[in-house]
Amino acid sequence: MLVTSDLREREETASARWSRFHPIVTGEDYLDSLRNRDIDLYLFGELVENPVDHPIIRPSMNALKATYDLATEDPELATAESPLIGRRVNRFLHLVESAQDIVMKNRMQRRLGQITGTCFQRCAGLDTISVLHSITYEIDQKHGTSYHDRYIEFMKLAQANNIIIGAGMTDPKGDRSKRPSEQDDPDLFMHVTRRTDTGLYVTGAKAHMTGGFNSHWICVMPTMNLSETDRDYAVVGLVPADAAGLTYIYGRQSCDMRAMESGDVDKGNAKFGGQEALVVFDNVFIPWEHVLMDGEYEFAQEMVARFTAYHRASYVCKTGLGDVLIGAAATVAEYNGVENASHIKDKLVEMTHLNETIYSSAIASSYEAKPLASGIYMNDAMLANVCKQNVTRFPYELSRLAQDIAGGLMVTLPSQQDFENEVTGPLLKKYLKGRSNVPVEHRARLLRLIENMTLGRNAVGYLTESMHGAGSPQAQRIHIHRIMNIEKKKGYAKGLAGVSAHASAEKK
Amino acid sequence: MLVTSDLREREETASARWSRFHPIVTGEDYLDSLRNRDIDLYLFGELVENPVDHPIIRPSMNALKATYDLATEDPELATAESPLIGRRVNRFLHLVESAQDIVMKNRMQRRLGQITGTCFQRCAGLDTISVLHSITYEIDQKHGTSYHDRYIEFMKLAQANNIIIGAGMTDPKGDRSKRPSEQDDPDLFMHVTRRTDTGLYVTGAKAHMTGGFNSHWICVMPTMNLSETDRDYAVVGLVPADAAGLTYIYGRQSCDMRAMESGDVDKGNAKFGGQEALVVFDNVFIPWEHVLMDGEYEFAQEMVARFTAYHRASYVCKTGLGDVLIGAAATVAEYNGVENASHIKDKLVEMTHLNETIYSSAIASSYEAKPLASGIYMNDAMLANVCKQNVTRFPYELSRLAQDIAGGLMVTLPSQQDFENEVTGPLLKKYLKGRSNVPVEHRARLLRLIENMTLGRNAVGYLTESMHGAGSPQAQRIHIHRIMNIEKKKGYAKGLAGVSAHASAEKK
Amino acid sequence: MLVTSDLREREETASARWSRFHPIVTGEDYLDSLRNRDIDLYLFGELVENPVDHPIIRPSMNALKATYDLATEDPELATAESPLIGRRVNRFLHLVESAQDIVMKNRMQRRLGQITGTCFQRCAGLDTISVLHSITYEIDQKHGTSYHDRYIEFMKLAQANNIIIGAGMTDPKGDRSKRPSEQDDPDLFMHVTRRTDTGLYVTGAKAHMTGGFNSHWICVMPTMNLSETDRDYAVVGLVPADAAGLTYIYGRQSCDMRAMESGDVDKGNAKFGGQEALVVFDNVFIPWEHVLMDGEYEFAQEMVARFTAYHRASYVCKTGLGDVLIGAAATVAEYNGVENASHIKDKLVEMTHLNETIYSSAIASSYEAKPLASGIYMNDAMLANVCKQNVTRFPYELSRLAQDIAGGLMVTLPSQQDFENEVTGPLLKKYLKGRSNVPVEHRARLLRLIENMTLGRNAVGYLTESMHGAGSPQAQRIHIHRIMNIEKKKGYAKGLAGVSAHASAEKK
Amino acid sequence: MLVTSDLREREETASARWSRFHPIVTGEDYLDSLRNRDIDLYLFGELVENPVDHPIIRPSMNALKATYDLATEDPELATAESPLIGRRVNRFLHLVESAQDIVMKNRMQRRLGQITGTCFQRCAGLDTISVLHSITYEIDQKHGTSYHDRYIEFMKLAQANNIIIGAGMTDPKGDRSKRPSEQDDPDLFMHVTRRTDTGLYVTGAKAHMTGGFNSHWICVMPTMNLSETDRDYAVVGLVPADAAGLTYIYGRQSCDMRAMESGDVDKGNAKFGGQEALVVFDNVFIPWEHVLMDGEYEFAQEMVARFTAYHRASYVCKTGLGDVLIGAAATVAEYNGVENASHIKDKLVEMTHLNETIYSSAIASSYEAKPLASGIYMNDAMLANVCKQNVTRFPYELSRLAQDIAGGLMVTLPSQQDFENEVTGPLLKKYLKGRSNVPVEHRARLLRLIENMTLGRNAVGYLTESMHGAGSPQAQRIHIHRIMNIEKKKGYAKGLAGVSAHASAEKK
Repeated sequence: MLVTSDLREREETASARWSRFHPIVTGEDYLDSLRNRDIDLYLFGELVENPVDHPIIRPSMNALKATYDLATEDPELATAESPLIGRRVNRFLHLVESAQDIVMKNRMQRRLGQITGTCFQRCAGLDTISVLHSITYEIDQKHGTSYHDRYIEFMKLAQANNIIIGAGMTDPKGDRSKRPSEQDDPDLFMHVTRRTDTGLYVTGAKAHMTGGFNSHWICVMPTMNLSETDRDYAVVGLVPADAAGLTYIYGRQSCDMRAMESGDVDKGNAKFGGQEALVVFDNVFIPWEHVLMDGEYEFAQEMVARFTAYHRASYVCKTGLGDVLIGAAATVAEYNGVENASHIKDKLVEMTHLNETIYSSAIASSYEAKPLASGIYMNDAMLANVCKQNVTRFPYELSRLAQDIAGGLMVTLPSQQDFENEVTGPLLKKYLKGRSNVPVEHRARLLRLIENMTLGRNAVGYLTESMHGAGSPQAQRIHIHRIMNIEKKKGYAKGLAGVSAHASAEKK
Repeated sequence: MLVTSDLREREETASARWSRFHPIVTGEDYLDSLRNRDIDLYLFGELVENPVDHPIIRPSMNALKATYDLATEDPELATAESPLIGRRVNRFLHLVESAQDIVMKNRMQRRLGQITGTCFQRCAGLDTISVLHSITYEIDQKHGTSYHDRYIEFMKLAQANNIIIGAGMTDPKGDRSKRPSEQDDPDLFMHVTRRTDTGLYVTGAKAHMTGGFNSHWICVMPTMNLSETDRDYAVVGLVPADAAGLTYIYGRQSCDMRAMESGDVDKGNAKFGGQEALVVFDNVFIPWEHVLMDGEYEFAQEMVARFTAYHRASYVCKTGLGDVLIGAAATVAEYNGVENASHIKDKLVEMTHLNETIYSSAIASSYEAKPLASGIYMNDAMLANVCKQNVTRFPYELSRLAQDIAGGLMVTLPSQQDFENEVTGPLLKKYLKGRSNVPVEHRARLLRLIENMTLGRNAVGYLTESMHGAGSPQAQRIHIHRIMNIEKKKGYAKGLAGVSAHASAEKK
Repeated sequence: MLVTSDLREREETASARWSRFHPIVTGEDYLDSLRNRDIDLYLFGELVENPVDHPIIRPSMNALKATYDLATEDPELATAESPLIGRRVNRFLHLVESAQDIVMKNRMQRRLGQITGTCFQRCAGLDTISVLHSITYEIDQKHGTSYHDRYIEFMKLAQANNIIIGAGMTDPKGDRSKRPSEQDDPDLFMHVTRRTDTGLYVTGAKAHMTGGFNSHWICVMPTMNLSETDRDYAVVGLVPADAAGLTYIYGRQSCDMRAMESGDVDKGNAKFGGQEALVVFDNVFIPWEHVLMDGEYEFAQEMVARFTAYHRASYVCKTGLGDVLIGAAATVAEYNGVENASHIKDKLVEMTHLNETIYSSAIASSYEAKPLASGIYMNDAMLANVCKQNVTRFPYELSRLAQDIAGGLMVTLPSQQDFENEVTGPLLKKYLKGRSNVPVEHRARLLRLIENMTLGRNAVGYLTESMHGAGSPQAQRIHIHRIMNIEKKKGYAKGLAGVSAHASAEKK
Repeated sequence: MLVTSDLREREETASARWSRFHPIVTGEDYLDSLRNRDIDLYLFGELVENPVDHPIIRPSMNALKATYDLATEDPELATAESPLIGRRVNRFLHLVESAQDIVMKNRMQRRLGQITGTCFQRCAGLDTISVLHSITYEIDQKHGTSYHDRYIEFMKLAQANNIIIGAGMTDPKGDRSKRPSEQDDPDLFMHVTRRTDTGLYVTGAKAHMTGGFNSHWICVMPTMNLSETDRDYAVVGLVPADAAGLTYIYGRQSCDMRAMESGDVDKGNAKFGGQEALVVFDNVFIPWEHVLMDGEYEFAQEMVARFTAYHRASYVCKTGLGDVLIGAAATVAEYNGVENASHIKDKLVEMTHLNETIYSSAIASSYEAKPLASGIYMNDAMLANVCKQNVTRFPYELSRLAQDIAGGLMVTLPSQQDFENEVTGPLLKKYLKGRSNVPVEHRARLLRLIENMTLGRNAVGYLTESMHGAGSPQAQRIHIHRIMNIEKKKGYAKGLAGVSAHASAEKK
């Protein structure tokens, strides 16, 4: 049980917190920045000593590393000129100033999907800083607070240090029929437990946190609309990932144990993976400089609505994964010697059609972006929801088609060790031979990649997370229902049918 | 049989042809422009005396008239500043100079779909003039011809006179396994039959011509790629709708005879309809000033490809019809008293989701437009094909859902005359009563509108034409296959799977 | 306004009613039986003098006539040995005594769909007499009534006279949020208005009555579950189609006016069509011998449930229509010269796959039939609902694919009169030529048949009626939900997951 | 390299082979029968010492064990009276003598799917013995051979000993564009390498062999149609699983390594799993008594066609898995407290609808079974193919819907060890609490079961194997195309359209 004096020790200043950071330039810098942090991370019931070199965790870091590497390799795509600090910054930290900026974000997201074949975990943070720009501004306008200035100061340092910000949004929610303040256990939604001169303390947990441990800072924020009685739940704050009181519990994934095996074939995608963690906050301190909402509950709903508008279009990244999966299916078809069969070609076309349909929903939403009062741009909410709704369907169909093209060997292929064994190796090379000029190992590698994306580790990101990330399908449907402007559509129909308000009155 | 002297009489000059036109400003002007033309139009085996006032034909003219009316009512949307003649022109005659111009076109198309609930027949002409800008330019670049200047001169007069241009593209094609020059009957593809000092003559037919008779000018052009032996088939030319040698045969539509009935209820959409005609060309003369291709067969394929890129995104108009149908379904649900049933709301959301998915494919394609050599912009071909492919599916599902919501009465409702009969009228008003404050007639009108759009006259445009217009589904799939860049996608997959070119060599 | 003495005149005896019938043997007998009846039938606001020879009505009679003709041509399929009268009877009047009997019914239904390409209107009556066997028996068991004997007597005469029984089930329902007895207008559900020594009177209307006018007798029955306050609505009775107080109002259909045209091409299916009518009952008398329920409201729900179990599997008839549509699409593909294109073959396979999926749901339901207490068999309710749910989806997809294969000409083809006109006829024959050995007229005829089934008159039966007949889609979903036995399924899952009731108690 | 003398040692007699078997009665007997066999089985590059107790392999044996246990627990369902040996035998060894027998097979298959939640691996063997009954009979009829008697003798012993027969059908196939005898490596299809007085030798491999190692005998047979040049490939024979020259290589599955972990929660379905193996045959001897085809290549195609007719309907087992998945989704919905949300109920209905649609295709096929010349029954091929085609689609959609209902926690849930750790355990129990009366562990167990079936070990059987087992989707489409009787369907269409053969002749 924590006593007050324990908590006092946690009252670290904002500048003390920033002092632990150094500007990150390269991907290697990023990996280094994750070493030697004083953080409790649990995996398989044990504290992880050296997460950066842990075979299960490292691929998820590699995926984030790719966001740094791309900035170096293709700065046009992955960086942008920031007026805040007067130089180019990683696009994941850039405040979007135009529709074109959001479109460029989408292109970068697709590209990183192509590069990593997995979730690269940095979008939720970007979408969080985007929404905070306008929300802090609007709270200040109404309440005379100074959240927006604090936000701008934070963002300058964030850009200068080129950090990763994790989005701590999803509360565990407990009994879904009850509001936050009505739960038996108040901690099932994150809330303020005390306030002092220098800051406030929060307790609770954030679930499914994408790239949880791989972040440098976590932004906690409400997960749903709040009412007056939920005032202590209306808190937004920025916390360094190594703040006292934080515990990370790693979520396990399909086929995660393959990462512990020697050999890279059976992993499918040996280099890249995703990460989701449960992050528990036990009286974690946040200095006032890093508090961006405290009690202004009436902004929670709009904050969530804007966040989802940004984030539901960010699922455009899955088209990059789709490109990989289409390519993998096409390659296996070639290795199997059936690439000219008309039904194979037709399935590849269908996969492409569905993938590009997702892409078009996303960029259409972005191109239709409009500025908010604070000057930042927000993409079109209807089309963002449409994009996400398609993402809850089409990757599943792409997976099904990829498995169709791949053939059953995808799930009956023996292990890499069997390929290397002196008895079974030659037998496998003899009997699993497809087209004569293709090494059996290549065929195995491509099949394992498809397994990885449709059943294995990266299926988590490509399928299930496509379903539930940024809100489950029903959440999009509710949103679409809310903004579909049905009265206007009824008016079109009545007009053409010859039913007018005037006519109605007359004819009754 | 025509003799040479007959043909000579047809050698009308370009200026003589233009002299029959007066600038059209209002929708009424447009209707007037269609009166008293010397044109043979056949319908139900008879020459139509006065097409403008024919009950079956007029609704199709009303739909085109709406394109003039909208220009007056909402000039921002339906007109654009034309550099060619230095003033605002109807957007259907505007040469697109930016991605934004194409997006504005899409918005206007959706709006006209909402206004008319049918095909307003003016898009194919617009997409034709768009493609001719770049193609004439590129032919001139290669061959030193002067097609582009001719084109520009024509467009100036077209804009000044605010005319309708019909797209004469689809040849009857005969035996689909044979090329144009191989057909038993050479006329199954339009071709040049003679050339004189003043111009050339063409013979053939253009099928499914949208708004055929309602146009002022027809642009004839090749329907597919051509080879050297098809040189006489490589002809593009502009012909006034009343040129000698033209015969129009009206295509009949589902429920067309309802237009001949008294009363407006059973028509569903009494005011607006579409039109497709077979237009036969028997040695029709085109003066050189109006010839924009003559023999440059190698440009036919690219011309078709660009036309379809423009035109497949133009099917965004169906989202306007979708808005009407969603509105009609929602209104009937309300009239039936079931608007709060969760499955009804869910079906309306699904309809909206599908409709907006189409919309996003279209505008995404447009926003991604790039300039061609001639300076005109062309939207993205992949996304345009994706848009059209979705249009071959989603309107059918929207129709199915609308019929689901409407209920069976949609197809068992007695006629308007039964509602007016003194015996049956009171019985129908008594027994077909739904919600108490809704007149039975209103319920009938909305049901008839849904019938009109899903089975009746405008189902032709909303469904079947959505399937086949701008190319049947397989045409889009072939196009997607051609441009899907599968090698690049294979590269992504191989990279992630650990199969490199280098590795391949080593391990074989 | 009817006075009591008027009503008294209506108190016709059961035997007087039967005296107007003569045994029907041939299809021609059937047509004759419909002549010279004293019935008020309204169509387009007028009383129809001679319905049998009315061009719009006759095709619907032809479809029913086919049920008689088939009994002659294929007695094995379309008749069955009846123990009631000791000889073979038309299978549409046979009481099903085994699962095999119901399967044979399904085969006959598919066959008649193939023969007519439309709704042959006799299934609802068959399913009605099937359900009455067990329900009358069970009411008698509980209440000591003698409905079942009355029913058996009626059936003997029905079989001997080989009559058509129409099912009068669907009440207009008015405000769907209110029960029958709560409606503003009590007549919105059929109910008993008076009872005398000799019988009772009913008032109300039956909507969407399939083959309404073409029946000899109508069986009225409740449309939904009833409660004690709805006692007067709990009435089942048999009424001759020409009983005093009946008024028939014909429902109009898509393209119905084509039946009034000369020529048979544009009709698509010139010979056969469906019919749905609104039948109004104004104090119609039913002698006690023909009353099969009067006040036993608690049986209404089960009666409807059993009726829908029978009737939802009867939608197997649509697979016969599907066979026609598949055949039509395949023929047009051949006429167009594209029958070997792989995508065409694949679409025909898909159509077949969907069609046979419907077929399998229907016959599986029938094969799983079990006897009820009265000795009659009833098919499996779950699979019947599954069958019908598939019927609300797959015919729409079959239609879409048929339109895809048919090509756009299906909706732009000029009229038969244009084919016959001396100017346009030769032009059409020249320009609409497909494969050289196929007459253009044949191509036109097949296209018109597809139009007929997907947009025109028989689309009503193939599509919309597939959606709503025997209950709209949501009705099946509610039924499936009720009988899906979810607790048993939860048990399987908990068992495999290692969660047992015992474990639950321990671990809480 | 094997020399002749080595091979001679392999010439074991049929009776010597049978002498190693003892009648199996209980499930435990079955497990015992797998112990101490002299078989080389490789897994992860190593010879497995004690397969029966290997944590990865045992669950697959448990699934087969369930087929014995069910025979004890529900003999009506899982045994049948065998005329061959005059007593009840396990239904998996019963020769089907009626349609009802095949329906009973389907019911048993669904039940075992419910019990195991996985592939219980015994169907392919059953379907093999079914097809051999008629094929051996027909070969004998034509060639005067005595295969059928040999078959009957084998079956008597098989029934008496209650053994498992594995189906060795799928050859590796190598270059799919070449016939067996054209392959570079002749072994890519199994073939006879030598014949002696006592028997013959085969070399090759059988891939994806379901329950490979868990069988007692393997029946090898051709995988496709053969021509005269493939005569040595036309071989059917029965081989004990421990015959000299056999090598088994275990196929790895998604999440297979979880079976090696302590704790049963994360396994999802700790008890049951599937198994597929590659079985290599290096000069394996078969005595003549066990040879059932040798060179009669012309029967290969029909043998495969009949096998697939039987086996494609056997995929009805997946409806048992579907029941488990529906139950799991419903349970999780309840644990999450959202079971009354209308969209949840609707999704469960949809899952049930799809699952029952599969069921109906299977049993419809079985009910329509007809006897073959040998007296055995075969189910309807069209509906069997339709069943399997649905199985390549609907389980994927069921999985998608189950993941939708389950929520994202399914893929972010920490490991069982984290639940047991003293620091993280209490945190997880606190924060992952759903409905208050449900232990967190129960929620975890159900989520893990859904993961198991949609991404994990049993997803292999439920999804990918549903896709490719008994032939990939395209194989069914080809089969449907072959037997869809399109000419008959064209005839229906032409008849209704008024196009007759006679008319065609006249009008040309």
